[in-house]
Amino acid sequence: MSDTPTPSATKGWLTFAIIAVGVFILGLLSASVLERRQESIRATAVTPMPEWETDNAEWGKVYPRQFASYKEGEDSTTRTRHGGAFPRDYLEDMPQLVVLFAGYGFSKDYLQARGHNNARNDAWETGRLKHADGSHKEKAPATCWTCKSPDVPRLMHEMGVKEFYASRFVDIADEIKHPIGCLDCHDPDTMALRISRPALVEAYERQGKDITKVSHQEMRSLVCAQCHVEYYFKGDGKYLTLPWDGGTSVEDMESYYKERDFGDWTHAISGAHMVKMQHPDYEVYQRGIHAYRNVSCADCHMPYRTEGGIKYTDHHVQSPLLNISNSCAVCHRWSEDEIRGRVETIQDTVARGRLIAEEALCLAHFDIAACKQAGATEAELKLLFDQVIAAQLRWDYVAANNGMGFHAPQECQRILQDATNLAQDCRRACAQVLAKHGYTDDVAYPDYSSKERAQALIGLFAKGEGPSLLAGR
Amino acid sequence: MSDTPTPSATKGWLTFAIIAVGVFILGLLSASVLERRQESIRATAVTPMPEWETDNAEWGKVYPRQFASYKEGEDSTTRTRHGGAFPRDYLEDMPQLVVLFAGYGFSKDYLQARGHNNARNDAWETGRLKHADGSHKEKAPATCWTCKSPDVPRLMHEMGVKEFYASRFVDIADEIKHPIGCLDCHDPDTMALRISRPALVEAYERQGKDITKVSHQEMRSLVCAQCHVEYYFKGDGKYLTLPWDGGTSVEDMESYYKERDFGDWTHAISGAHMVKMQHPDYEVYQRGIHAYRNVSCADCHMPYRTEGGIKYTDHHVQSPLLNISNSCAVCHRWSEDEIRGRVETIQDTVARGRLIAEEALCLAHFDIAACKQAGATEAELKLLFDQVIAAQLRWDYVAANNGMGFHAPQECQRILQDATNLAQDCRRACAQVLAKHGYTDDVAYPDYSSKERAQALIGLFAKGEGPSLLAGR
Repeated sequence: MSDTPTPSATKGWLTFAIIAVGVFILGLLSASVLERRQESIRATAVTPMPEWETDNAEWGKVYPRQFASYKEGEDSTTRTRHGGAFPRDYLEDMPQLVVLFAGYGFSKDYLQARGHNNARNDAWETGRLKHADGSHKEKAPATCWTCKSPDVPRLMHEMGVKEFYASRFVDIADEIKHPIGCLDCHDPDTMALRISRPALVEAYERQGKDITKVSHQEMRSLVCAQCHVEYYFKGDGKYLTLPWDGGTSVEDMESYYKERDFGDWTHAISGAHMVKMQHPDYEVYQRGIHAYRNVSCADCHMPYRTEGGIKYTDHHVQSPLLNISNSCAVCHRWSEDEIRGRVETIQDTVARGRLIAEEALCLAHFDIAACKQAGATEAELKLLFDQVIAAQLRWDYVAANNGMGFHAPQECQRILQDATNLAQDCRRACAQVLAKHGYTDDVAYPDYSSKERAQALIGLFAKGEGPSLLAGR
Repeated sequence: MSDTPTPSATKGWLTFAIIAVGVFILGLLSASVLERRQESIRATAVTPMPEWETDNAEWGKVYPRQFASYKEGEDSTTRTRHGGAFPRDYLEDMPQLVVLFAGYGFSKDYLQARGHNNARNDAWETGRLKHADGSHKEKAPATCWTCKSPDVPRLMHEMGVKEFYASRFVDIADEIKHPIGCLDCHDPDTMALRISRPALVEAYERQGKDITKVSHQEMRSLVCAQCHVEYYFKGDGKYLTLPWDGGTSVEDMESYYKERDFGDWTHAISGAHMVKMQHPDYEVYQRGIHAYRNVSCADCHMPYRTEGGIKYTDHHVQSPLLNISNSCAVCHRWSEDEIRGRVETIQDTVARGRLIAEEALCLAHFDIAACKQAGATEAELKLLFDQVIAAQLRWDYVAANNGMGFHAPQECQRILQDATNLAQDCRRACAQVLAKHGYTDDVAYPDYSSKERAQALIGLFAKGEGPSLLAGR
């Protein structure tokens, strides 16, 4: 007999081998599936955190993916056509802002914010809260910390909300340890989204609405609206308040401030008691097509990310222009270049409208200063102040909000036209006042074409030593 | 034996009956399919028309569906929020237009156009081409007929283009028999889209482009652009010309007119030599998102219609808002109410911006008139004229175009902001001129709140008998 197996034996061994390999592969697959499932369970499982855990890194141990993406936000080099987190001196790029904010902190120091992760340090370092010698202003209220750290809700809990606001910025600085992070938006027990700042809750209450009754999708915007809104420090207690009682349009908020005769500062050139708008991002967003279609802030600024079989929310909050494929392109099926082009075209148009309004506003402040130099009466000045305040408040509603108008382009352009029209009304009224006091020529506008020149100029005006703006007689 | 058939005989008859019915139904179906196919072939088959067949009804005999839809355009009762074909006196609704067009035909008679089908009669009846006694102006050029009838290309062929333009409106009226129709856009031999008016072809040539090289999709807009564009009557020969040599933006066309020192009329109040913009619909459309996405005029204004198995182009050219399901909703899958709401929100915003620009412009004309009454010099007036001309030309680019800005909302708002800013510059300069001549108070603006008041007012100004606008001294 030969050693060669019979054909039927060969067939038998072959069958056995195929089955063996098949079973082995099936085993590998099952293991992989089980592993993925476990991963996925681990990834979505809720592990409660201590009630006042403000250290984002501690949360990161339990939620490593979210934390890793959050940490990417430390990058302060990102750049889009009109924004980004890179270090940028707005006053150098746009010296007209020195004129517009003359006499206010923003004319002294106005740097681009370097994102959530750097918020605590940006607040501590801003020149707006420092004396010329670099020491911090004693009078700066703790309210300035409100949006900068998850330590704030902890301190509010420990101290009481009123007491927190009434404290001094420097006195609690050591307690503000961590930059904007997990506890700001998440319930540490359930991980559900949660409003941690009282101002938004109170604004809802005053409007007769209950913020605990909103949908999860609304919460995906409202956690942002805790800070990305217009606000002011009310009364001596510096109680942080949203001026939303009559609504959130620029006209609604203007009425709110007018009824309370509120102003943030006295303008160093014109002397008008101005209102500063603070990033009314949520208010502007509400007037755009994305809000209309129920797209939340997080949908574009924190889109989903996948890692293997796991889908999670990207916690690197940034411009969607830096992450087009995961944000815009999910709904708008065009190439990244094409989408970027469309967004930038919209933003460029708003930016152009902003510049036109800015020029009219700057000149209006100088025109009013000229009227004062010419001897304008209180009654004459009152009318001019009203006009320049109304105009600048509108411009600022657009200018101070992030996104260069993209959140609601038509609304922003509408407001910029109004701002321009009002600033020009003011300038025409100034021409008439000047004429009544004997000056019929153009005002001799000083040079404010660089940050240094503009700051030197307003320094003189602040001391009552501004150059004569009067020409002709 | 009984008469009852055996079970197998019953079964046989039943099978026969079923087969017979089935075959009959199949026969019916085949007949129907063949009929539909024949219909479809007839519907898309090209039957040449005589070369100069200008009677739309003759074409209708061969193309009954297209003609039936075209005939629907005779309805002059349609109405949208901002437009429609219903009889409407713009001057009654917006008496400020009487002021803006003071001294020009549009301040005397400005009715809403009642659509293509009524174009010939609307042109014949307009008060703009008549004397006060109702007789037609002898000097009105035949050029005014250019866009009103398919008889125009026939006449141009018979008379020569130059000779056509150089004729008188009244002299060729009898030859203008049919309203805008088939021959205006179709090659009678092939039914292909065709440019029948020389102005557009010549404008392309001057830009170094060949209009015969464009795509069919471009032609679906360019046949409209034969008429729905800004144009002017060049020189004594009243040669119809598009001012596109440097481009089609409002700034491009402004430069074109400036270089040629062209103006349409002298303003009866201010005395400025104004440019009237004529429905620059195609130019504005080019700057909007629909053009960017290669959506043609016909896609929205002449969407496909089906009748049984036949699909054909709707020749009732009208606002897509009157036919949302076939136009907008083909791409935008929302309810009709929702779509209408979005469009109207966009239009309302533009309409609001228009009103603001209009007020500034009206007052600017009165301000200049006041300057003249106060004794302004030629040099002083020249500057004021330049400003009001630039401002009104921009406003008119938006106001004269159909769709209340919907074709390019951002562009329209951009231009309205510029128009407002320029008109206000003019008004401020006026205040200075008035002051130099001793008048420092507000101008005493007359009442122009109704068509009658405004027309009476400009009648006085035209005779040099306008009321004194000067106040204070």
